[in-house]
Amino acid sequence: MKNEKPLILVSNDDGVEAKGINELIKYLRPLGNIIVMAPDSARSGMSCAITADKPVKYQLVRQEEGLTIYKCTGTPVDCIKLAMYAVLERMPDVIIGGINHGSNAATNVHYSGTMGIVIEGCLLGTSAIGYSLCDHKPDADFSHTAKYICNITRNVLKKRLPKGTCLNVNFPAGLIKGIRVCTQAAGKWTHEWERRERPQGGEYFWLTGEFENHDSDNDGNDNWALDHGYGAITPTKVDVTAYEIISELKTWNLND
Amino acid sequence: MKNEKPLILVSNDDGVEAKGINELIKYLRPLGNIIVMAPDSARSGMSCAITADKPVKYQLVRQEEGLTIYKCTGTPVDCIKLAMYAVLERMPDVIIGGINHGSNAATNVHYSGTMGIVIEGCLLGTSAIGYSLCDHKPDADFSHTAKYICNITRNVLKKRLPKGTCLNVNFPAGLIKGIRVCTQAAGKWTHEWERRERPQGGEYFWLTGEFENHDSDNDGNDNWALDHGYGAITPTKVDVTAYEIISELKTWNLND
Repeated sequence: MKNEKPLILVSNDDGVEAKGINELIKYLRPLGNIIVMAPDSARSGMSCAITADKPVKYQLVRQEEGLTIYKCTGTPVDCIKLAMYAVLERMPDVIIGGINHGSNAATNVHYSGTMGIVIEGCLLGTSAIGYSLCDHKPDADFSHTAKYICNITRNVLKKRLPKGTCLNVNFPAGLIKGIRVCTQAAGKWTHEWERRERPQGGEYFWLTGEFENHDSDNDGNDNWALDHGYGAITPTKVDVTAYEIISELKTWNLND
Repeated sequence: MKNEKPLILVSNDDGVEAKGINELIKYLRPLGNIIVMAPDSARSGMSCAITADKPVKYQLVRQEEGLTIYKCTGTPVDCIKLAMYAVLERMPDVIIGGINHGSNAATNVHYSGTMGIVIEGCLLGTSAIGYSLCDHKPDADFSHTAKYICNITRNVLKKRLPKGTCLNVNFPAGLIKGIRVCTQAAGKWTHEWERRERPQGGEYFWLTGEFENHDSDNDGNDNWALDHGYGAITPTKVDVTAYEIISELKTWNLND
């Protein structure tokens, strides 16, 4: 057991064939034994969704020394739950989501399937990291992220993360000036829908939108880091209690 | 404007025809004008998922004085985004999700479509509340929640919630001893999959499971309150930064 290589569980939300996850696998190979359980096709924007209304299946894609790849019909979170149940013989040393094609910084953490993977890993009691690149293109260039991903993952394997915390790591497209430890930027999406009409009549709506940064002056947040060419590590927690308003709420007459 | 009744946007994840949302509408009618945009069928466990890969549509179900009901083909979060874009003429005074058939307490906040609605409302800058009853049955008895829902909603309409915070309110099935302001209980799901075989051969998996409470001795958390017959208000925040580990992470050699 002591000389065993680290066991790394990998998933994503762009699907098992996406460039991002295949680059990630390449970078992580030297660090341990890798099991991949990833969606069989893209499941972007799935957040922590689980499949409650139908069954889920998985299938071996390929296996070689130190690497086994499965694909799954479920959501990113289903992938983690099913891998833990059906495939892994012990708890992994780290669960990694990514590399996502597109940013998951700021409040996007809430919509992100990549971070769904990471939050699930964290809830299960494992160190977990999500990696994302601010480039949606299918053939995005992930190469500049490689040394940082190896470094961050090595650190996490060595030091582990405190219980209930995980990492949301985002990289700018292109050259990376370095890594900053950040807070989650505030902001929201605006102009979110594009309205279309069917030739036969009747309207429908495509989700698009622009992210409105409410925190652009604050150089401690993840969007600031990305806008200035840095990779951003945003430590993230699964206890979302708003402790700071508990005493105020207790003064409300809620039992009348 | 000053004499205008409060505008209340309502959605759920059990679908527009579920008993829970129709009871909620009944309880809220005296408090303001109500717009409902709810999924056209059940979307349980959808978390903050958004629909990125296909367009979304909505349709009027019925309209009467002070109440307009629409149904939508999207996720619970899509419902809120689309209502704000296509239907509402001003920001609502409160966004309410529920009443969910089933608990969203403890770490279930992460999987909950009901809380997806609430988190979306909060991200958009509106006070938002999720109501859930610990009873999955389609004909669950919601009647004991009525007075608490009116009271909590009235308080929120009057006092508003601080920016970035929302409420996750869960009720026990049956009689309610009163309301407690709580923290989010720690815990995780175990034994999550039920394996089946197809008559033709080949396996598939249904998500089921049992919730393992890791916080059962702590009488301040929401699961404790529910287990002891109390309604639980868990104030919830959308900034999930783990501030407490930022200084530790800054000591890691992440730029080597």
